[in-house]
Amino acid sequence: MKHAPLVDQLIHAFTCLPGVGPRSAQRMAYALLDRGREQGRRLGDALHAAMDGVQHCQRCRNYAEAELCPICESPKRDSSLICIVATPADVLAFEQSGEYLGQYFVLMGELSPLDGIGPRELGLDVLEQRLQGGEIRELILATGTTVEGEATAHYVLDIAQDAGVQVTRIAQGVPMGGDLEFVDGATLAQALKARRPFGS
Amino acid sequence: MKHAPLVDQLIHAFTCLPGVGPRSAQRMAYALLDRGREQGRRLGDALHAAMDGVQHCQRCRNYAEAELCPICESPKRDSSLICIVATPADVLAFEQSGEYLGQYFVLMGELSPLDGIGPRELGLDVLEQRLQGGEIRELILATGTTVEGEATAHYVLDIAQDAGVQVTRIAQGVPMGGDLEFVDGATLAQALKARRPFGS
Ligand SMILES: [Zn+2]
Ligand SMILES: [Zn+2]
Repeated sequence: MKHAPLVDQLIHAFTCLPGVGPRSAQRMAYALLDRGREQGRRLGDALHAAMDGVQHCQRCRNYAEAELCPICESPKRDSSLICIVATPADVLAFEQSGEYLGQYFVLMGELSPLDGIGPRELGLDVLEQRLQGGEIRELILATGTTVEGEATAHYVLDIAQDAGVQVTRIAQGVPMGGDLEFVDGATLAQALKARRPFGS
Repeated sequence: MKHAPLVDQLIHAFTCLPGVGPRSAQRMAYALLDRGREQGRRLGDALHAAMDGVQHCQRCRNYAEAELCPICESPKRDSSLICIVATPADVLAFEQSGEYLGQYFVLMGELSPLDGIGPRELGLDVLEQRLQGGEIRELILATGTTVEGEATAHYVLDIAQDAGVQVTRIAQGVPMGGDLEFVDGATLAQALKARRPFGS
């Protein structure tokens, strides 16, 4: 004897989510069945709508509901300035800063040959063509500082230099307004190495 | 600028699940969009099927896809012996032991007056009627040993004694085959108090 089959199917389906094991999946199924049927239906609708309706922007690879995302379509954004990020969440972080008026290229990952993620999987062949096209003035690197992030940054640097496009990288250092005691050693070392004249 | 609206809706819908905050919800949405669209659709289908198709057994309150669950419908199960448990997961645990041939009454919770969960919410009025009906020979208490579990056990004891029905409780003690060093103090104290003659 097990749960009612529909309950077991729901528990099993939840375990496809990252970080969800059999126990959390059971807890999720019970919560929706016991006091959240309407929420459960809404989640079901949202899943179908997103799985069927979300594609990738043909220009920047970010999530989009049309061929181009709103940022790539906007005439207000400088299309000669491209910021390279790993994920849609990074785009969100830049947009929330309100300081950036260029466009993006979203890799949807980082180079990781052992996992089968090479330049093609990140759309870097497409980026290379655009760099060769001559419309891009500056490429800003904002990939992570892990081994994969560094490898990705260097690959992008290579193809940009081949195309004669200027490459910059966002500054690494201590966060604004933070106490130094909460900053990790590697960040502090980098901040020290990249120190600049002050009080000129 | 935010995510594509369908992506934001999906992330928001995931946060209705227990233990899922905005960050995990985002990770779940990205995982399905990036490499699990088919799994996402299956989860959507499973949600709709369960939200619409799962009801409660009219006899034992466990999840069921018909008026009665398979256990309550089975002629092989002794309907004069009823085990009181808090959740459908507890039924599963008993069934997996393979030792129990009676039926169940699933409270779908425990008494918790501060949360508005009284006897009615646990179906204890229905259980009381069945106890008065005279078909039940023995009630086995298998609720938890928390404050709420104890309160629930004592409430059930009261209504069973009023109906003249015998009440037993599953034994508490050290788990079979476990090392004593992993057993908590309260369990060990209870095991000591409930010690029985050995080697007779
Ligand atoms: Zn775009
Ligand atoms: Zn039943």
